[in-house]
Amino acid sequence: MMYVTRKADFSASHRLYNPEWSDERNDAVFDKCNNRNGHGHNYILEVTVRGEPDPETGYLVDLKRLKEVIQREVLDKVDHKNLNTDVDFLRGVIPTAENIAIGIWNLLAGAIPRGTLHLVRLQETERNIVEYRGD
Amino acid sequence: MMYVTRKADFSASHRLYNPEWSDERNDAVFDKCNNRNGHGHNYILEVTVRGEPDPETGYLVDLKRLKEVIQREVLDKVDHKNLNTDVDFLRGVIPTAENIAIGIWNLLAGAIPRGTLHLVRLQETERNIVEYRGD
Amino acid sequence: MMYVTRKADFSASHRLYNPEWSDERNDAVFDKCNNRNGHGHNYILEVTVRGEPDPETGYLVDLKRLKEVIQREVLDKVDHKNLNTDVDFLRGVIPTAENIAIGIWNLLAGAIPRGTLHLVRLQETERNIVEYRGD
Amino acid sequence: MMYVTRKADFSASHRLYNPEWSDERNDAVFDKCNNRNGHGHNYILEVTVRGEPDPETGYLVDLKRLKEVIQREVLDKVDHKNLNTDVDFLRGVIPTAENIAIGIWNLLAGAIPRGTLHLVRLQETERNIVEYRGD
Amino acid sequence: MMYVTRKADFSASHRLYNPEWSDERNDAVFDKCNNRNGHGHNYILEVTVRGEPDPETGYLVDLKRLKEVIQREVLDKVDHKNLNTDVDFLRGVIPTAENIAIGIWNLLAGAIPRGTLHLVRLQETERNIVEYRGD
Amino acid sequence: MMYVTRKADFSASHRLYNPEWSDERNDAVFDKCNNRNGHGHNYILEVTVRGEPDPETGYLVDLKRLKEVIQREVLDKVDHKNLNTDVDFLRGVIPTAENIAIGIWNLLAGAIPRGTLHLVRLQETERNIVEYRGD
Repeated sequence: MMYVTRKADFSASHRLYNPEWSDERNDAVFDKCNNRNGHGHNYILEVTVRGEPDPETGYLVDLKRLKEVIQREVLDKVDHKNLNTDVDFLRGVIPTAENIAIGIWNLLAGAIPRGTLHLVRLQETERNIVEYRGD
Repeated sequence: MMYVTRKADFSASHRLYNPEWSDERNDAVFDKCNNRNGHGHNYILEVTVRGEPDPETGYLVDLKRLKEVIQREVLDKVDHKNLNTDVDFLRGVIPTAENIAIGIWNLLAGAIPRGTLHLVRLQETERNIVEYRGD
Repeated sequence: MMYVTRKADFSASHRLYNPEWSDERNDAVFDKCNNRNGHGHNYILEVTVRGEPDPETGYLVDLKRLKEVIQREVLDKVDHKNLNTDVDFLRGVIPTAENIAIGIWNLLAGAIPRGTLHLVRLQETERNIVEYRGD
Repeated sequence: MMYVTRKADFSASHRLYNPEWSDERNDAVFDKCNNRNGHGHNYILEVTVRGEPDPETGYLVDLKRLKEVIQREVLDKVDHKNLNTDVDFLRGVIPTAENIAIGIWNLLAGAIPRGTLHLVRLQETERNIVEYRGD
Repeated sequence: MMYVTRKADFSASHRLYNPEWSDERNDAVFDKCNNRNGHGHNYILEVTVRGEPDPETGYLVDLKRLKEVIQREVLDKVDHKNLNTDVDFLRGVIPTAENIAIGIWNLLAGAIPRGTLHLVRLQETERNIVEYRGD
Repeated sequence: MMYVTRKADFSASHRLYNPEWSDERNDAVFDKCNNRNGHGHNYILEVTVRGEPDPETGYLVDLKRLKEVIQREVLDKVDHKNLNTDVDFLRGVIPTAENIAIGIWNLLAGAIPRGTLHLVRLQETERNIVEYRGD
């Protein structure tokens, strides 16, 4: 069993708040992440695929093709976007790193060219990281 | 002559467009940076001070105090903010990395605790960096 | 199941030696890490928590609160300290990266605000890293 | 159970192609990695060992000795080499990152000074990484 | 005066030797960099442009256009290539980092979309870096 | 004119205080850097040499030889040492990053194998950096 990881990045804005809550409760919970006009991040995305290498190529998965899938399925939808208003797969959820990672998993799980999606890792800032394995 | 640098970071959103231009011209020039609902970045800021070390302390500048100045003069104004709408020192300018760096220089030039402000360096993405020396 | 990681860092000094051994044996085993007057490192600490995100917030754990716990339980005790003489939770153990990681696990395991402590990862130098999962 | 990781790096050249295939098929699959005169990378290698720390030293494994093993078993064979022509343990395999990682695992599995080899992680470029755990 | 930097990277192989020298002298001077079948690196390239920002855009230079220039003038010629045999602008020179940087300067100096080329910085390994300013 | 940089690192401990001052004044100025039993850092050292490349080799300076000079003149004296008690070239000065950089400059200025010493850059923590150019 081999694990192959491809890194990508995107830049997006968001605002964290629960629309069913009062302003006060949103401020208490989300603090400066609830700034009314939003803020933003450079997100670093790592996508890990697991499987057996193909004996004819030595590749578990052709990383050029995996790169294209990540571009089409994820980056084209989130790069230089507002995650609250511009992104279909985040409609109706609070765009925390956790929820973005789950959304990216769902976009990619059926689109991996060879092998099986194993891990989505999303770094929101230098010091904050989430990981999701689909279970 | 010694040069001392302190790094900091902040997360903010912005939209790049010239309000005196048509939508078409803004899209042609600013492309995806002109997304209507904005996007965002983790900015890495480096502030460099030059001068002679104090023989009694061995410090050019006490970095705890420089850190506090950067926090008060810059980070408190831009971190988790929308650079188009929330930031006084960027009022009326397009918030490109170049203009943000000039604004930060102007905030800091008179507030350095010891020595002279030498360089403001602002990294907007992993691959894009600007530097301003005040001239 | 989601995994959320918070990074922190601290600077500390230590000396590696076993007080029950001769100087010769300590030098043979610990080499330059047994320098009599100590040496030091910038340690990078990663704390990973696992659990289900809260549907009301989208957070597995509020990283502001996790940051405060790491500050209070760990950083306040080790940052700018001598790990041989100044740190209660390392009393009586050789302050190798392995033992520091076990000590940090024990400090944090009962103090995580939401979810369960999953991993303590401690990078002692650019090239040396330890990980502990509590078992 | 503790996990200890040592990082190393080496610089090597390679060309990816299957000698049983036509030039056309090799170009279609391996694209620019099939450049006739080769290309190269700075590979970053991480070797992770698992086990219990020795109560007398606090070390799972003496990283000086692990460093020497990695130097002798791996780096001396691949650093500043051509992976297609100069490396015995890659004879007859396509030198993809996957196959290099398997080869390094086989060199190291019986040579770890203390504990058990757990993971070989090989970063070929800033964005492409493979991991192998021997199963 | 503003300075704007764009980072890029490429992977290439090379062999360092002076064809007018004996094998012995080449081995003595270039050591393992003279491996007969070559070796390779991931090169990190930084291109810095200086000038005044355009008041209408806030940009010194549109980094999308600078990125395209670097791709066309440099990366397309060196990425996944053998620097001894495949690269016209290095014909007849020993492909040290110094000579590659001079060659890249000459390719870019007349092709910068706005402002003036200020610096070419080339990182050959994690620990080795060269800079050239054209004088 | 070319600039060539070699990176190195060392781990050391220190305590910052002025022996001519009272404890109160030392605590007020140096704060936690004045911890009685010291603390420590992983220092990252960058040494930059300037000059013309040798037309016969393409090298400004052979980085293997520069590496050896840095090892012998600097690292052997400071790595895994206490900078207050174990280091001759820091005798009688407060071992701030500024003073360490000046000391390293003085050790290296006459020992560069080819070209002229241009810059000593010393990173004490992820966020604190000093540079010295000998004037």
